Amino acid sequence: MVTADTKETKIEIVQGGGITSPQGFTAGGVHVGMRHDWTKLDFGLVYSETPCTTAAVYTSNTLKAAPLLLTREHLTDGKAQAIVANSGCANAATGKPGAENAVTMAKLAADKLGVEPADVVVASTGVIGTQLPMDRVAKGVAETKLTGDGGDDFAVSIMTTDTVKKQIAVSFGGWTIGAACKGVGMIHPNMATMLCFMTTDAPVEEAFLSSALKEAVDVSFNMVDIDNDTSTNDMAIVLANGLAGGDTITAGQPQAEAFQKALTLVCTSMARMMVSDAEGGTKLIETKVEGAASPADARKAAREVVTSIGVKTAIYGEDANWGRILAAIGNSGAAWSEPKTALYLRHPDGGEICLYRDGAPQEYDEAAAKACLAPAEVLVRIDLGQGTGEATAWGSDLTEEFVRLNSMYTT
Amino acid sequence: MVTADTKETKIEIVQGGGITSPQGFTAGGVHVGMRHDWTKLDFGLVYSETPCTTAAVYTSNTLKAAPLLLTREHLTDGKAQAIVANSGCANAATGKPGAENAVTMAKLAADKLGVEPADVVVASTGVIGTQLPMDRVAKGVAETKLTGDGGDDFAVSIMTTDTVKKQIAVSFGGWTIGAACKGVGMIHPNMATMLCFMTTDAPVEEAFLSSALKEAVDVSFNMVDIDNDTSTNDMAIVLANGLAGGDTITAGQPQAEAFQKALTLVCTSMARMMVSDAEGGTKLIETKVEGAASPADARKAAREVVTSIGVKTAIYGEDANWGRILAAIGNSGAAWSEPKTALYLRHPDGGEICLYRDGAPQEYDEAAAKACLAPAEVLVRIDLGQGTGEATAWGSDLTEEFVRLNSMYTT
Repeated sequence: MVTADTKETKIEIVQGGGITSPQGFTAGGVHVGMRHDWTKLDFGLVYSETPCTTAAVYTSNTLKAAPLLLTREHLTDGKAQAIVANSGCANAATGKPGAENAVTMAKLAADKLGVEPADVVVASTGVIGTQLPMDRVAKGVAETKLTGDGGDDFAVSIMTTDTVKKQIAVSFGGWTIGAACKGVGMIHPNMATMLCFMTTDAPVEEAFLSSALKEAVDVSFNMVDIDNDTSTNDMAIVLANGLAGGDTITAGQPQAEAFQKALTLVCTSMARMMVSDAEGGTKLIETKVEGAASPADARKAAREVVTSIGVKTAIYGEDANWGRILAAIGNSGAAWSEPKTALYLRHPDGGEICLYRDGAPQEYDEAAAKACLAPAEVLVRIDLGQGTGEATAWGSDLTEEFVRLNSMYTT
Repeated sequence: MVTADTKETKIEIVQGGGITSPQGFTAGGVHVGMRHDWTKLDFGLVYSETPCTTAAVYTSNTLKAAPLLLTREHLTDGKAQAIVANSGCANAATGKPGAENAVTMAKLAADKLGVEPADVVVASTGVIGTQLPMDRVAKGVAETKLTGDGGDDFAVSIMTTDTVKKQIAVSFGGWTIGAACKGVGMIHPNMATMLCFMTTDAPVEEAFLSSALKEAVDVSFNMVDIDNDTSTNDMAIVLANGLAGGDTITAGQPQAEAFQKALTLVCTSMARMMVSDAEGGTKLIETKVEGAASPADARKAAREVVTSIGVKTAIYGEDANWGRILAAIGNSGAAWSEPKTALYLRHPDGGEICLYRDGAPQEYDEAAAKACLAPAEVLVRIDLGQGTGEATAWGSDLTEEFVRLNSMYTT
């Protein structure tokens, strides 16, 4: 796990931390049977003692789930105090009844917690096109116990085909940011998938919280690929209750940089966890593009490489088929030229091997190339030789198991 | 196989026809050993008795193979008289030696056939990043015998992982169009893949030939997807020698519509053949979008559905997971709304079943839905209820076998 130092503030990982690590947040999760074949926790709540400044980003898919539309409406005032979430049913493409069910879900949670329905974030994840079993939602609201160490159960309750729960907490300058997320067919329509909830006890101004979240998401969740798709339910939301005190953090304020770095570290860690747990995946492919004409060009190239099915299948097969990497760059729309481009793989013993440079394939040891592709994390470094733009993207490999899982999901 | 009637001219499929069906074209193919593990024909030539008016479209990938760059240069005058092609090596990402080898390949073919090097189309397909074995190219030029029924051998000589040769010829109004193509990881970087050569004995004006080719490619090769990728070597080229006589065909001329329809039929047939033979594929997914706000919206939606990995894997698993189709539409950028959209599957016994309409999932018989997804050709019809725009796209399913093939291609 990474830590980062800012000029003034050290950011540290809270061992075993999660969404209830920041002061004033409680959470919980229960099993209510949202899917007939599930025994796992599938319903959860998060609560803050005091109202929170809140920022959110949502899916770009124009098919938007009912809970997402309701949450967006609730957050127009930038305030929230609770989260209600379920797995097993996405409540997407469910028409008017689905919209009404999302409203009821918010109301039930609000009544239990003594907050306004408009201060409740509502999230659902699971199969598209089935209606929420509202008796089970009611049961979930009634039975969930909110505790200061309930972050674990909440993180489990939002999992679908995730094989591990995904959570993190970091502390910096007396404040803490906690997070729970789910998504392994991230950015994958059927799973209606990526949810990331973050909490913090730092006092953060709303405008800065929004811009900080956008910046963190741009270099994390927006730089990962499992299967080229964008879900109908994706949301990343941060709730800041300010209970740890201190001056309000605004843009340009001394602690703004530390907060941005901490939030980015949380988002990047969550994004990597999702890709590492990708459906059927065996490897995380980290692609670092340097020397691009601009940061935007670097992003395009890095994303295209981790998205390419040719690259994903070749790396799964531990086949140093660098022509596919070059072709992905050629497909990306980034400014580049063959003679200026160099491709490298990180060797697990340290150092790198060069696959392509000066417009020509390089001589390299096949066994060494194979060794570079053997680890669970493969690092591809690309120098475009155009300028100083940099970006990193993360993708999973594509395996027979992914196809098997995704060809029989609803049945 | 489809035939089409125009107002004045009937278009007919020439049984067993191919690239040498039009008058004045000869072709051939030989085995020279471009890959150590191949015994198939892997080198071919096509020749026209007289110079041809020529039009071409090329890959949009900015990594362009040496033969493609040379061919584009040769065709700036809109004239060609011969094609030299090989499989097994793409001559892409091969730097200066690769460019020189393409020039030599054209010169060797030109010398044998008594034409100018600038009138030779050069094409290579196979692995990226290896140099052409020029002794074998020379052997291929020397040994290939050009005959009036050599179209079959030429069609075989350009195959890589294709399992069947792909050719067609159609006749209309005394003229004939013939074609040979290859590509099964179409639009797939490693295979450097899609090549389509067309010949005709119709007399066609250059400007009209270009616009007719563009129009035909837009509704055929540009509407298929196997694996989301664009190759470095893709080209579709038509050579018209005019040897069957008649008035020169220009835009607006009486035979222009018949020529356009015949060329479109050839391109569409070839595109379908490629998708039907997709690497690891078991099904062709035809997606017909109607009622779009514009033809461009229809194209976006149709292409996104056949490109979606979620849709491809679900249809492979014969799982009527219509939420993935809806999410693909939501990802496509096409104008749409849930309540106006309807999704249908064609039933093999005739008729259709409706999966989604009026903003809500429809009740349907699971067994009937399964039956719709069982055939080797699955038809998805989408009515967006916005206007009159229409488009059809074709995609393969995504299978474990695709992953297996693509994870071990170069090794």
